[in-house]
Amino acid sequence: MNAMVVLDFVGVGLFAATGALSASRKQLDIIGFLFLAAVTGVGGGTVRDLILGVSVFWVIEPIYILVCGITATMIYFTAHLLESRYRWLLWLDAVALSAYCVFGAYKGLLATGSPVVAIVMGTLTGTLGGILRDVLANEPSVLLRREIYVTAALAGAVAFVVADVVGLTEPVSAVAGFVAALAIRGIGLALGWALPTYRSRPGCNPDNMG
Amino acid sequence: MNAMVVLDFVGVGLFAATGALSASRKQLDIIGFLFLAAVTGVGGGTVRDLILGVSVFWVIEPIYILVCGITATMIYFTAHLLESRYRWLLWLDAVALSAYCVFGAYKGLLATGSPVVAIVMGTLTGTLGGILRDVLANEPSVLLRREIYVTAALAGAVAFVVADVVGLTEPVSAVAGFVAALAIRGIGLALGWALPTYRSRPGCNPDNMG
Amino acid sequence: MNAMVVLDFVGVGLFAATGALSASRKQLDIIGFLFLAAVTGVGGGTVRDLILGVSVFWVIEPIYILVCGITATMIYFTAHLLESRYRWLLWLDAVALSAYCVFGAYKGLLATGSPVVAIVMGTLTGTLGGILRDVLANEPSVLLRREIYVTAALAGAVAFVVADVVGLTEPVSAVAGFVAALAIRGIGLALGWALPTYRSRPGCNPDNMG
Repeated sequence: MNAMVVLDFVGVGLFAATGALSASRKQLDIIGFLFLAAVTGVGGGTVRDLILGVSVFWVIEPIYILVCGITATMIYFTAHLLESRYRWLLWLDAVALSAYCVFGAYKGLLATGSPVVAIVMGTLTGTLGGILRDVLANEPSVLLRREIYVTAALAGAVAFVVADVVGLTEPVSAVAGFVAALAIRGIGLALGWALPTYRSRPGCNPDNMG
Repeated sequence: MNAMVVLDFVGVGLFAATGALSASRKQLDIIGFLFLAAVTGVGGGTVRDLILGVSVFWVIEPIYILVCGITATMIYFTAHLLESRYRWLLWLDAVALSAYCVFGAYKGLLATGSPVVAIVMGTLTGTLGGILRDVLANEPSVLLRREIYVTAALAGAVAFVVADVVGLTEPVSAVAGFVAALAIRGIGLALGWALPTYRSRPGCNPDNMG
Repeated sequence: MNAMVVLDFVGVGLFAATGALSASRKQLDIIGFLFLAAVTGVGGGTVRDLILGVSVFWVIEPIYILVCGITATMIYFTAHLLESRYRWLLWLDAVALSAYCVFGAYKGLLATGSPVVAIVMGTLTGTLGGILRDVLANEPSVLLRREIYVTAALAGAVAFVVADVVGLTEPVSAVAGFVAALAIRGIGLALGWALPTYRSRPGCNPDNMG
């Protein structure tokens, strides 16, 4: 079991956990837990594989679906024990994002050899599961909140690709990408850091053309 | 014309009808009817085929697009005759879901041979069209309502796959899955049944970390 | 460089610009600009290529991603100079839609030979980027506004396909489709034209079955 397999399962399992926590915040039934856990757990990787033109990972190895199902069931029975489900959701999401942006960049590089495609794939894979979760759970998308989120996935993917291109070994590159993403997202979460935002007037109501 | 072809066309046509009914509730123009009918009618099956790595069904046989177009046009001229468009939408959606969860599981089994993948595919195919319709029409997603919905698609897919695995003939398995899904969704609709929901406090506002 | 390559880059670049303008309206950071620009710029074409079963265009030629990135960066530094970002967004979107509905129909015809599939592909490619942008930016989808939008993409795709089928040369067919779409969308924008909408009562609240 190498570093990449670990990142893959960590990403799927923790994203599934955040989907289940989101379901518990919305007071869904057990099937709602399973559904949101599965979409969040395998959603980003599914789009990654479709775009890369490779077989979708969980169609080849359905064990990933079982990982999501077991995670969702465990969260269903334990979420009430957590003091703050939302804080758990954010931190598990941070670790999952960090694992999965590296794995996505790795798979992109493997499939195409292009660093640009690998970086886009890492960013997409690290963030898409969480975006799908928020859209389906009707929460405001993390994209629109003043937080470092996509930035962390981008940084992790860039760190991994650069480390790989300069010739570091795969586990070292993986750790570099993972640590870069988690540090940025974690510091952002802990300290409320954000990048400077566009400092003009916000958009008017869409019906107001002025 | 075998059982599976019937289920396929019933699913596409009725999902298209629900998309058109949703368009009529939003007072869209005829093109809005066509667009929502097409997305709802072929959306779930499109994602199914992409994930399974087979050619998208309506690209091979564009007749499915014509079915959606004809259905949308008919609904455009007749929806005002319905006493309650929303009740029609819910019941047509129930029949479409029941047909399409079986057909999706069948196609998943055919393509991969894996019962787990077949069950996921059936659940996805039965529910995704309706979810896309609700997201595009800006209605609260059925996922978040306290109703048996995904459960019915899951039950239908499981019933079909179990019947098939134990060796029943294809039409019998198809009927078993269809009846299981429709009974569960129909009873849920008629009696307002729901699974017990997660009984803790709902999630706080996302900006409230407490 | 032929007509189709021009349409392709015009579509990607202008859609990316509208994504960046949407990000500026939401006061996102530079990474938010890049993300929304990329999703809007290549989103419609990505889904088009997946459905057609051909390799996703920007995975083959990552230059498209760089186009989105450069556009987003330029908009980040200049959007405050625009008198009305929303009006710019709408008009750039109109030109992008007109270019991309023709290119989508062209690629659909090339891949399948079916006029019906080509028309669906053109309509989808011209509108999906904008719909994804609005869903992610949490703006009301253009689908639900009383405006000619999908209609323009459909008209452009039909005009191109008809011109191509009757034997006009490719550049002439492309111009015909582009002008048809832009005229319809532009006149709609300029004059506030809309198709007659479905004139019954709007849908009740989903929780109200009556």
